[in-house]
Amino acid sequence: MPVEQVAEANGRFYRAFETLDLPVMETVWAHGEHVQCVHPGWPLLVGWAMVRASWETIFTHTGEIRFTLSDVRPSSHGDLAWVTCTEHILTEHQDRIAVTAVLATNLFERDGDRWRMIHHHASHIFGPPAPAPGTMTA
Amino acid sequence: MPVEQVAEANGRFYRAFETLDLPVMETVWAHGEHVQCVHPGWPLLVGWAMVRASWETIFTHTGEIRFTLSDVRPSSHGDLAWVTCTEHILTEHQDRIAVTAVLATNLFERDGDRWRMIHHHASHIFGPPAPAPGTMTA
Repeated sequence: MPVEQVAEANGRFYRAFETLDLPVMETVWAHGEHVQCVHPGWPLLVGWAMVRASWETIFTHTGEIRFTLSDVRPSSHGDLAWVTCTEHILTEHQDRIAVTAVLATNLFERDGDRWRMIHHHASHIFGPPAPAPGTMTA
Repeated sequence: MPVEQVAEANGRFYRAFETLDLPVMETVWAHGEHVQCVHPGWPLLVGWAMVRASWETIFTHTGEIRFTLSDVRPSSHGDLAWVTCTEHILTEHQDRIAVTAVLATNLFERDGDRWRMIHHHASHIFGPPAPAPGTMTA
């Protein structure tokens, strides 16, 4: 089922993020000029070179990061798919631990038998508390 | 061209927002359970009833709002399309004027000869300043 494959691709993205290993993250994404990325609070990054550079910067400045996902909602139309999910993020950097909730919209395109990420839009949730993790995990 | 139609649908959304008129906004959206919306800082809203109620709340509490868009990037795959853009927002409420920059990912599905919005994810930009408006407007 496409939606199950897409949910798997979405999970792969977060596991790649947790590795903080750029070559692993490179396998998750399409590498064209059309890929885009919005990290929380950042402006839009366009094209694989900018997106890749952003992951390099983030991985360099992150000590440890763990994701628990909730409300994972995959959908697909032909060769394009998107997922919304709430990321519950535990980070550790220089002995400081932080827990934040981030809302993500992730777009994927089919590439043979793989779904590659073409857009990641993540933003902090400041409103009412998000539902507790537990429905699904990365 | 689909991308031109999608850019037009995207512009219609922002003009509907400026009217602060719920029946106008209703014509822009698909009305199914699959529609989703993330207003800046809010958690995910799922289904047309919740999304519609959010617009009712926002329109009730907004005195005046004007959008200038930049970096409008429409793409389409078959019956699904998405647009990223930077919203430069001027709001006025109780004699206070505010200007903010918001990054949006908007998804549309084809409905006959119209493109209807099925997902709006908007988030504030806190990082480096966004490019000045001027490339395209709503």
